[in-house]
Amino acid sequence: MAEKIKTLSLTPNFDKGSGLVPAVAQDAFTGEILMLAYMNKEAFQKTIETGQVHYYSRSRQELWHKGGGSGNVQIVKEIYLDCDWDAVLVKIEQVGAAACHTGRRSCFHFKRLKDGQYEVLEG
Amino acid sequence: MAEKIKTLSLTPNFDKGSGLVPAVAQDAFTGEILMLAYMNKEAFQKTIETGQVHYYSRSRQELWHKGGGSGNVQIVKEIYLDCDWDAVLVKIEQVGAAACHTGRRSCFHFKRLKDGQYEVLEG
Repeated sequence: MAEKIKTLSLTPNFDKGSGLVPAVAQDAFTGEILMLAYMNKEAFQKTIETGQVHYYSRSRQELWHKGGGSGNVQIVKEIYLDCDWDAVLVKIEQVGAAACHTGRRSCFHFKRLKDGQYEVLEG
Repeated sequence: MAEKIKTLSLTPNFDKGSGLVPAVAQDAFTGEILMLAYMNKEAFQKTIETGQVHYYSRSRQELWHKGGGSGNVQIVKEIYLDCDWDAVLVKIEQVGAAACHTGRRSCFHFKRLKDGQYEVLEG
């Protein structure tokens, strides 16, 4: 007998963040967190429609197809919302070597040391 | 010969988010993303000083010692900043069964299905 799956109709709550929700991109295969950026409603819809992650660039104030220029696109594997629907987790396949514009795999490459300095991680 | 580690003096950039930065809590052992919340300067300092994660509650507008009431505290293992220092990643040991106030392990328990509905993940 098939188990019944409990489902809900949900949409991200864009109101709390003035039209934006933070979106975490996690490597679907390694679990590594690659970056955190923001989505507006359009970016979230484009992400679903195209299967590639779109963000909203706060600095450029425009829709941002991640990797659209560099080719380092992020292919959507799974999408999750959190308990109050105001944060998004996208599990992705990162095309190309880097998620970060610095050429590093992950944007989270500054690791805090005990003395309060930050080690710059390469790779 | 010991390799030289490249280090920097950094502080999170709280200005871009009106005094707040998003902070992602990741299970240091499994890689699972447990929650996303926000830190102000005080919360970030308290996290470092105490070794337990502190956030800033946007709804209550006050410092929030995660698990201070329930006992489900988050013990800091590593802290990372991203490339422009406006997002924090904390790798943690989650004490107790749940990071989420709903009793679930992770706050990201709504998984999007192909039909646009969200499956409610238990556990």
